[in-house]
Formats: sequence, C-alpha cells, structure tokens
Amino acid sequence: MKVDLNADMGEGFGDWTMGDDAALLEVVTSVNIACGAHAGDWDVMARTMALAQDRGVGIGAHPGFPDLQGFGRRRMSMPLDSLANLIIWQFGAARGVAAAQGATVRHFKLHGALSNMTCEDADMARAAYEAALRVDPEVILLVLAGTVQEAVARDLGANWAGEIFADRGYNDDATLVTRGQPGAMVHDPAEAAARMVDFVRRGAIVANSGKVVPAACDSICLHGDGPTALAIARAVRAALEAEGVTLAPMSARRG
Amino acid sequence: MKVDLNADMGEGFGDWTMGDDAALLEVVTSVNIACGAHAGDWDVMARTMALAQDRGVGIGAHPGFPDLQGFGRRRMSMPLDSLANLIIWQFGAARGVAAAQGATVRHFKLHGALSNMTCEDADMARAAYEAALRVDPEVILLVLAGTVQEAVARDLGANWAGEIFADRGYNDDATLVTRGQPGAMVHDPAEAAARMVDFVRRGAIVANSGKVVPAACDSICLHGDGPTALAIARAVRAALEAEGVTLAPMSARRG
Amino acid sequence: MKVDLNADMGEGFGDWTMGDDAALLEVVTSVNIACGAHAGDWDVMARTMALAQDRGVGIGAHPGFPDLQGFGRRRMSMPLDSLANLIIWQFGAARGVAAAQGATVRHFKLHGALSNMTCEDADMARAAYEAALRVDPEVILLVLAGTVQEAVARDLGANWAGEIFADRGYNDDATLVTRGQPGAMVHDPAEAAARMVDFVRRGAIVANSGKVVPAACDSICLHGDGPTALAIARAVRAALEAEGVTLAPMSARRG
Amino acid sequence: MKVDLNADMGEGFGDWTMGDDAALLEVVTSVNIACGAHAGDWDVMARTMALAQDRGVGIGAHPGFPDLQGFGRRRMSMPLDSLANLIIWQFGAARGVAAAQGATVRHFKLHGALSNMTCEDADMARAAYEAALRVDPEVILLVLAGTVQEAVARDLGANWAGEIFADRGYNDDATLVTRGQPGAMVHDPAEAAARMVDFVRRGAIVANSGKVVPAACDSICLHGDGPTALAIARAVRAALEAEGVTLAPMSARRG
Repeated sequence: MKVDLNADMGEGFGDWTMGDDAALLEVVTSVNIACGAHAGDWDVMARTMALAQDRGVGIGAHPGFPDLQGFGRRRMSMPLDSLANLIIWQFGAARGVAAAQGATVRHFKLHGALSNMTCEDADMARAAYEAALRVDPEVILLVLAGTVQEAVARDLGANWAGEIFADRGYNDDATLVTRGQPGAMVHDPAEAAARMVDFVRRGAIVANSGKVVPAACDSICLHGDGPTALAIARAVRAALEAEGVTLAPMSARRG
Repeated sequence: MKVDLNADMGEGFGDWTMGDDAALLEVVTSVNIACGAHAGDWDVMARTMALAQDRGVGIGAHPGFPDLQGFGRRRMSMPLDSLANLIIWQFGAARGVAAAQGATVRHFKLHGALSNMTCEDADMARAAYEAALRVDPEVILLVLAGTVQEAVARDLGANWAGEIFADRGYNDDATLVTRGQPGAMVHDPAEAAARMVDFVRRGAIVANSGKVVPAACDSICLHGDGPTALAIARAVRAALEAEGVTLAPMSARRG
Repeated sequence: MKVDLNADMGEGFGDWTMGDDAALLEVVTSVNIACGAHAGDWDVMARTMALAQDRGVGIGAHPGFPDLQGFGRRRMSMPLDSLANLIIWQFGAARGVAAAQGATVRHFKLHGALSNMTCEDADMARAAYEAALRVDPEVILLVLAGTVQEAVARDLGANWAGEIFADRGYNDDATLVTRGQPGAMVHDPAEAAARMVDFVRRGAIVANSGKVVPAACDSICLHGDGPTALAIARAVRAALEAEGVTLAPMSARRG
Repeated sequence: MKVDLNADMGEGFGDWTMGDDAALLEVVTSVNIACGAHAGDWDVMARTMALAQDRGVGIGAHPGFPDLQGFGRRRMSMPLDSLANLIIWQFGAARGVAAAQGATVRHFKLHGALSNMTCEDADMARAAYEAALRVDPEVILLVLAGTVQEAVARDLGANWAGEIFADRGYNDDATLVTRGQPGAMVHDPAEAAARMVDFVRRGAIVANSGKVVPAACDSICLHGDGPTALAIARAVRAALEAEGVTLAPMSARRG
C-alpha cells in the first residue's frame, strides 16, 4: 500500500506570506505550487521549488485564475481557448522555474474557482487538461477522485492520480458535502487520520452515510493554514506510517 | 553572406494592440515576443507564436521589467537574484506557450530599461544571461553588438548573436548616438538600407565619423511602429536580397 | 427638447491607446472615463479629463471589474460589499483626478460585465449605486433606460438619467435585441440618426416591432471605435442639431 | 506638550495580511493607509479606515509606487507629471473610501522608495506634494523632520507636520544613521521611550553624538511588525502619557 500526501504551497506574493510551508514540507510528499496568477511570484516560486527539491518532495504546478486580489477564488468567465492559453502560460512558467532549480514539474492541479468550475463543466476540464498536456504530455493530472475532472482525465488517456480530502465529509456520489452543512468538515485529527487509513486500505471513499464508493485514493490533500490543519496533517501522516503505508510522491494511473 | 532581420512583436495586451505585426512578419526572419511582464499576455503570446511558426520565422523570448503601465521602459532597481527569477519565469512561460504551438524558443533578447541597464552594468547582464541559460543552456543570446551585453555573453561561453540597428547612428566606440543629438536617427529608407548592406558586407559598424569598427552584424533590428519604420524595414530587406545576402533566422556564435 | 450625447473615453492603458477620443470629443456632450480597473490609468485619466474639461464636456466615472486583460468584459463573482468597495475606490480616484484638473465628476456609469450584471440583478445594482452615492449623494446615475438599473436608481431616490443606444435595436420590453440576432444592430448612420430624433421627440423607445415604449431618453450612447461608429455619432449629432434639439450634458431626474 | 503617534496600516492585499493593525490601533493616534498601488486594496482600505474612524484615530493617505510585488520599496524612474498623476489617483481613491465610511483624510505621507527618493530630490518632492495639494489644499503633509521633504513643504506654504523615528539613531545633520551601521537602530523599548520623551520635550532631535538639532517633533513613527516593534510602540506611548504629554492626531504647521 502506498499513498501520496499533497498540499498547496508557495502561496505568498512579494512581501506577503501565507501558510506555514516549512512545517508542511516536513509532512507532505508532493506540493502544488502557485504560478503567479492567483498567488506566487517568480521569487516565491523559485524559493518554494528549491525547498521542495532539497526535501525530495514531488513538485506540481497549481495554476489559477488571473486574480491576485481574489486569490483565484472568484469565478471568472473566459473563452476556453483563452483559458487554455492562461494555463499553458502558467505551466510553462512553473516548468522554467523548476528547471532553473534542477527540478521537474511532475504533476498538475487546478486551483480554487478554476478547480470548482472544472468539477462541474466537462468542456472546461477538457480544455484545461488538454492545455497542460500540450506543454507536457507526460504530466500527472491530479484530479478530484470521482468527479468530472477524473472522467475527463481518463477520457484523454492522460497520466492521472486521484485526490481525496482528509478534512471533508463525502456524499454518496463521492462529491464533498457542501461547506456549512452538517458533516462537511472533519475537525478531529484522530478521526481524520483513521478515515484516511481506512480510505487508503479500502481503495474507496466511505461516504458519511456509510456507503463505500470505490475511488482512486492516490493522494491525500492536506492544509497548512492554522494549527488544526497542521495537526490533522501530522496525524494523518503518523497514522499511515504506523500502518505501514508507504508515503511517496504520486504515481500515475493511465487513462 | 547571411543576416537575420529581427523585430519586437506580440506587444499587445488584452484588447489593446501595438504595432503592425502582420506587416512586419512579411519582412523579418526572427521575432522577439513579449512575455507578459511589460507587454503581451497568454493570448497575445499564443497568437503571435502561432503566426511566427506558420511563417517559419525564428521565435525569441523578450522579457522585461514587471511594469505594464510603463511598458518596461522605466528603470527599476531589483536584487540580482530576484531579477534572475523574473527572467526565468518569463522565459519559462514563453517556452511553454511555444511548446503548445509546436514551436521552439531559439533566442533571448532583453527589453527596454532592462536592456539599457544591462548594456551599462556587467553584473546585471551576467545575472540576466545566466538566468536564461539555467532554463536553456543552448538558447542564443541576442546582444547589442560591441556592448557590455556582448562581452558578458562571450565570457559565459554562451551561444550568442550580435545585433545592429537599421535606423540609428553610431559613435566611434560602437555605442549608439544618444537620441536627440545630431545623427542619432536614420530616417531615410534608402540610406538605412545602404548602410545595412555596407555593415553586413564589412562585418563592421561604420560610425558617423567614418570610423570602421569590426562588429558581429548577425541580426538587424527593425521596427514596425509607423510608416517610416515599416518603409525602412522593407527597404533594408529588399536591398539585402538584391545584393544576394541570405536572410535567415540567426545562427549562434559561441563564446 | 434637449438631449445628452455620451461616449466611453480614456480607455487606453500605459502606452496602449483605444478609440479616437479626440474625434469623439468633437461630437459628445458627456464622457464616461475608465478608472484604472478595467482600463485607464492615472495618466490616461488625467489627460482625458483635462481634454474634456477644456472642451466643456460633462465628466463621468466609468468603473468596471478589476480585470485589465479582459477589459472588464468577463463576468466575475464578488461579494456585494467588496463590489461596493471596488466602486468607491474607483469613483474616489476619478474624483481626485478630476479635482486636480479643476473639474468635477457629474455622472456615474457602470462598464462592461458590471453593467450587464446589474441590468439583471437588482441587489447588485443597488449595491453598486449605493456605493456611488456614499461617495457623492448628488452624482447622476446614468442608467440603461427601462432596465433594472433604472428601477433601482428610482427606488434609491437618486439623481439619474436614462440612456438609449443609437446603434441597437430594441425588443418590446425595451431591452436590447441580443447581438447576433436579426435587428440587433443599426449600421446605417442616416437610419440611426433618424431613430434618435424620433426617440427623443417621442420621449420613447420604438421597438423593432413598432411598439412605442415611453422611456427616459436623456442621453444617447455613441461609440468611437471604427469609421462606422464615428459616422453614426456625427450623423446623430447633425440630425439632432438640424431638428433644433439642444445638446448639453445630461440633467438629473430625481427618484 | 502634545505629540501624535503614527503608524503605517492597511498593508494587506486580498487574502494576505501584514502587521498587527488591531494591536497598533490601541497605541497610535494617526494611521497612514496604503492606497492600492504598493499594498492595500479597496476592501483592506475600507476595513482599515472604518476601524480607524471607530477608534477616533486620524486617517492619512500613504501612496507609493505602483509595484505590489516589490511593496513599493524598489526605486522606479517616472516623469514628474506621471508621478503627480499617480499620487493624485491614489489620494483620490483614499478620499473616496474615507468619505464612504463617513471619515476624512487628514494627512498625507509618502511610502517606501517614493519617500526615500523625495528626501533626496527636491523636484520630486515638490511634484509629489503639489499633486497632493491639487486634490486637497488643506491636507497636512507629514514630512521627515529636517529633510528635503520638510524644506519643500515649507516652501509650498502647505500645512505640514514633522515626523521622527522612535527606533532609529540620528546623524548630526538630523538624517538617519544608515541601516547596518553602528547606532542605526534602537532596540530597547525603554531607551526608545526615554528618547522620545526627551525629543518631544526639547522640540529637538538628539543625534547619536549628543548634538541637539532643533526639529519639528510633531509625530512619532511607530511600527507593528514583530514583538519588539510593538513593545517599543507601547513603551513610547506609556512614557509620554506618564510625562503628561498629550497624545492626539497631528496638528498642522503652516509654511
């Protein structure tokens, strides 16, 4: 048994910092690095990639909408060809910065509103993923397990890996329980850790109802903002290690 | 005898256009494409690179200061490591966009105030060119012939090519006559064309004083803004063709 | 009889220009000036306001979404309080630039996607207009005649004026015929001019069906991009003058 | 005896925060609020001004270079008329946001590299201050006591106030000891507090050499980044109160 632990990183901009990248780097095996459109800049990206490279952690590009003030969380309507260009531009920049640190961008994960919208809209997901593959046909698309993102990645015959959340409850169709509704969040580190061990062992998501939904539990998304998030991250890692699960940068499924 | 004709291109942003790229593409053999910091965006870059690729014209990255409102013409003071990251980020983005069009970035030319400052400051030129080489050790550095830029490119043992101006007068030390001084500009297309034929034949710049300064006349910089510029560009091309000079994307000198 | 002729202006950014402001200034009696979020910058705003002031033309603030690359034409989802702050910030900037030219911002008109969305969503229109009134309770809200914008302006008891289009066809409910559908555009300058004289005389919009819809025909929106637009603008002005209609900056209706 | 305590505030952007504004607001009597060019955005500005207004603290505009990534600390070369427009635009935006909170912008202080450059260059200081006065002839220019800034403000016959630093050593000509040199920084809160009481009482700066230089000690600049800065701020306030010095928003000197 093997799983990857991923987290967003490099989300500062200029003099502004966000999250505790150093602490998270001790826990994760892959990082998703902002590319300068919704967060991150050339310096933050270079610094973060150099740290990740030193630490032997897998590096991913994490493009978002071009909206620094809204942190890429505001939905924007863009023509698909422009969206594709936007993604190519960010992914290329990330690859350039990685190359300059002697590193490689292994995976690709969409950020914020761009991720949310591509979980709903297959055409948009296809445009985004095809754009990434035009830059690097071998890159691993990190998709939300069981969503439109996964369906599109499979359909493209791309390298992909499935992502699950340590701190979120699931509906019977493997979608996340909407924030604000009962059971949306898992706050207890021990509970989150036990769930993740269970999901990885089963190769399935267990919905809040108890329903077992087979899923590609290849990478667990962790957060670093706030003490609870970090406590969950550490508890998940410790529990997986205690169970003998190998922690390593994600491997690709194909098609 | 062989020479390259280069021009800046892809200098629009969003709905704003600049210059007559279509007309210039009929004349030049290489284009320097803005990377999104001082001009250009993901859409403009993609569109311009696709056109250049269709036309068989050599593609270059043309990074500048991150100053859209000032078009990269305002001097900015940046630490050298940050300058390096800025250049890597832009060059990487350009390479990504090129790859997505099935094209390759062959050369690299600095823009505006960034170019001016690196003609004066060897440390800055070294930081900028080393940054480019960290992304692609084989890229051709297009330098202003006879300047600090050339000296640094040689010293780095890099691939490089020398650039001369069709519409500018030269001092005895191969520097440009400052704008506003007598002899700074060449306005007459026929005169510009005759000068370029002369320079390329001699492999030398002829200063306004008549002094002949051997120089790497590998690529002639042309402009597309305004009817005179375009007339000069066309006259230069016609004169070189009439003299049997081969027009082709720049080749690299080494070291 | 009296009417205002308005046009968007100051839509350049940095070295980039857009439209023929000088030509339009000869025709219009009010201008809507971009505030730096979707177009315009401090220099463009200052230059445009100084020209408008010299010419005796009414000055309006024309705020849009913070999206330079998309020219404010992409829909963005923002919380209403943030939208209000965005508008206040732009309106304040416009008032500051006007004050420095010895001018006054008389009116306020929403741009692009922000205008479109406030024609559909009364809460959003209310948030936007209340924001403007918090900065200047006396400013004239220039609203699309007969739309949600007008209803909200009336409901707020604000100063307002109604706007009609010289080059667009109307449905029976006074909404514009969607672009791309038959009758959406009026291309012929003479026809546009005759329609505007008719609308202003009647104090009503005549829909494409012939239905007469009473409307606040206080200001006619003209465009300056392209020879047809400018020809329409001039024809409209000439026809109104020939009919003895007074052309002057908009007056306010109240509530 | 009376003095003002000022601090920079509202230096976040979007989701990014900077400094401990809430803690500083308990200490200061005036705040300098970033205007969106080097830091701050419409939401941060509105929130910060509302807090300051609630607290009865004097509000100032704090414009900087248009360089978010460099936090306005990088020197930029701009024509003086463009610099003036930039300042007018920011000051106008700040006044608009203040008006919407029922507040008033009382003072004006330059930020970062823009402040440094105007301490050296009288033409630039004059352009910047004249720009502010074109928007509001009554605004109080907060200048570094004894510098070119003060000389220019006096020469303009403007309302102004002089600023001294709690945590910096002074040379005999009232300039700051350069960072990195011995005596540049005052780290001990008790020492800083004692110095400030001394300076305010004397109406003079005491240089590190012991030389007493009469100066307009109208407002003491405090910082909020890091525990030492906050400790100094609190110690200065406590010491001044203990000595019976009145703490209140700055009053203006004239000419």
